[in-house]
Amino acid sequence: MANPYDKAHELARVLKESEEFSTLKELHDTVNSDDVAKRMLDNFRKVQIELQQKQMQGEQISEEEIQNAQKQFELVQQHETISKLMEAEQRMSQVIGDINKIITEPLEELYGAEGEGEQQ
Amino acid sequence: MANPYDKAHELARVLKESEEFSTLKELHDTVNSDDVAKRMLDNFRKVQIELQQKQMQGEQISEEEIQNAQKQFELVQQHETISKLMEAEQRMSQVIGDINKIITEPLEELYGAEGEGEQQ
Ligand SMILES: [Ca+2]
Ligand SMILES: [Ca+2]
Repeated sequence: MANPYDKAHELARVLKESEEFSTLKELHDTVNSDDVAKRMLDNFRKVQIELQQKQMQGEQISEEEIQNAQKQFELVQQHETISKLMEAEQRMSQVIGDINKIITEPLEELYGAEGEGEQQ
Repeated sequence: MANPYDKAHELARVLKESEEFSTLKELHDTVNSDDVAKRMLDNFRKVQIELQQKQMQGEQISEEEIQNAQKQFELVQQHETISKLMEAEQRMSQVIGDINKIITEPLEELYGAEGEGEQQ
């Protein structure tokens, strides 16, 4: 009988060969080989992470910080390759999310069917 | 070329047919068809979730609550079927965790290789 680990490795290989991943890798490599673009994206991510951490710790976020984050966001949005990379990352994250839903479906069925009798 | 979604469905099927899932489902159904066992497990989970929520919100957890949680834990540990179910859940959660690592390996490679040059 097929083994979940073998199938997972097959899925990883297919994912790596997918259009979504190739596009992501190409854009990622383009941005990372361009010093100016890389610095712009790194700055944007640093600001995003700092704001997220503050939010999670319930800290106050100043008007200045919000404006700085917006400025960084507009900068990366206007950079064609970076904005394409960010779209490619969102698509990949959607695919990974969908895959996780598909894989955990049997568990959802088991745990979600409580009190409604068995489905199927 | 194979499609990630098709592969994910294959993996979900293999996972559903796996020893780990069959054992989990059997124990889950046994516990859920036994009113006393089900109530014991539901109580335990309710207490666990309440404590987790308090912890996440940074609320104080009383000595009494800790003792109550320990008592519930000892109760479920002593119940053979429930303790087996909890072990089966841990095994399944390990498998799902491993699968997630395998699937996101290409992304880890892409994002983890920053500054160390490309890892093949
Ligand atoms: Ca059920
Ligand atoms: Ca890289």
